[in-house]
Amino acid sequence: MGSLVRTGISLDSELLARFDQTIAKKGYGSRSEAIRDLVRGLAIASDVTQNKVVVATLTVVYDHHRPNLSERLIEAQHHYYGKVLAMTHVHLDARNCLEVIIVKGRGTEVQELADHILSLRGVKHGKLVITTTGTRLK
Amino acid sequence: MGSLVRTGISLDSELLARFDQTIAKKGYGSRSEAIRDLVRGLAIASDVTQNKVVVATLTVVYDHHRPNLSERLIEAQHHYYGKVLAMTHVHLDARNCLEVIIVKGRGTEVQELADHILSLRGVKHGKLVITTTGTRLK
Amino acid sequence: MGSLVRTGISLDSELLARFDQTIAKKGYGSRSEAIRDLVRGLAIASDVTQNKVVVATLTVVYDHHRPNLSERLIEAQHHYYGKVLAMTHVHLDARNCLEVIIVKGRGTEVQELADHILSLRGVKHGKLVITTTGTRLK
Amino acid sequence: MGSLVRTGISLDSELLARFDQTIAKKGYGSRSEAIRDLVRGLAIASDVTQNKVVVATLTVVYDHHRPNLSERLIEAQHHYYGKVLAMTHVHLDARNCLEVIIVKGRGTEVQELADHILSLRGVKHGKLVITTTGTRLK
Repeated sequence: MGSLVRTGISLDSELLARFDQTIAKKGYGSRSEAIRDLVRGLAIASDVTQNKVVVATLTVVYDHHRPNLSERLIEAQHHYYGKVLAMTHVHLDARNCLEVIIVKGRGTEVQELADHILSLRGVKHGKLVITTTGTRLK
Repeated sequence: MGSLVRTGISLDSELLARFDQTIAKKGYGSRSEAIRDLVRGLAIASDVTQNKVVVATLTVVYDHHRPNLSERLIEAQHHYYGKVLAMTHVHLDARNCLEVIIVKGRGTEVQELADHILSLRGVKHGKLVITTTGTRLK
Repeated sequence: MGSLVRTGISLDSELLARFDQTIAKKGYGSRSEAIRDLVRGLAIASDVTQNKVVVATLTVVYDHHRPNLSERLIEAQHHYYGKVLAMTHVHLDARNCLEVIIVKGRGTEVQELADHILSLRGVKHGKLVITTTGTRLK
Repeated sequence: MGSLVRTGISLDSELLARFDQTIAKKGYGSRSEAIRDLVRGLAIASDVTQNKVVVATLTVVYDHHRPNLSERLIEAQHHYYGKVLAMTHVHLDARNCLEVIIVKGRGTEVQELADHILSLRGVKHGKLVITTTGTRLK
């Protein structure tokens, strides 16, 4: 990891005032922190485009009364053994479950795993979030 | 509009190096210009949340052989008279048309107009882009 | 283009009731029309993934007082001659302009053109919408 | 929950052929399952617009060497006690952590919690996924 550096940016004073207002509402403590977040977002989007290794979380809601679905979800995760880092299960109510599956791999592998799981019969909804391994982002 | 001001931001040297690489690939001439774009994007998202006046473009693809569709599209635009600034029509091939409708209004009004047009029978695809009037964004 | 066919789908009665409610609010005249829209959206997303020929609109807001910007925008569009189908210009106020550039090409070409234009100094905001040529989508 | 019903939809034979191709690639077992997923997605988007109770997962990547950050993350979650259902922590490497925070609440509450956490200094990246409680979606 690198050292902390400072860089200057120039922008219109009104645009800056609106920026300050927006980030205050979101709770940021400083301009630098808010801009770092924007810059990191750009870096992650660029990792995805270049099919680099990313970390992702797949959120899935399903009905565990559906025959064999839990088994097929476990099976799918084992099929991608080595890519799945962890899984958390929450009991939403008597029937409904939410699972978050945390995976690490190239963008295309992660997408394939998500497509496979989201297409299982009985999965009500799901979404993939792609983020960073953190190592190249400070 | 305000005057140009400079502000300093501090961030990790490696994050900055990745930022420089990404924006060079995208063709930006300076860091300031790229950061201004990120900051403007945040301001526009905040305008939408607060239902401020925005400018938007609605892109629509449809088959003009579909009976009455052209009429209904024109009618819908006149119904929102005062909000529709302009419309461009491109002949994609013998049957298919693309129209871009440029509108100005509060976020909710613009969304209603888009819902109305996109739900017309025969509209093959459409998407709404929300942007800024430019006046508060330099 | 093919002929009109019917297919049956089975789904939960409550999910169907919510669907009917949502599409009524959006103004759809029939379930078939609303489902065709969802299906077309999936087809277009799949075209992008496979880098097929798409039609796209690039919405750009800029300040025409910015020296040389109009020239550089025109130049950029001529550089991609053969891909740019049309352009519409709206005068938002004394300074601000909105342009919609309609392009046709492979997903990656269209993205490159958008990156190039959006990174020009003085472009305040812009967004790319990717849609279909219409020929393979009825 | 309701009973299973069948509804017929009519669409162009070529559009249907493309749909079949796309969903086969994604691994769906039947058209009904794929269309149910599209319909559920629409229902969830509509819940968010109407500020209904949703379930959401917030994925966060951060460096645990950052002073006090872990404490502030825990504190933030306790502040929203009653909304946070569970949290999972994964050690990505010697410095980097990924946390997935599972929350339940109205759309605006969930967004506020996410804004608060994502603006903490030292959080490298984060993203909110909004999904359903499952009860009204079969």
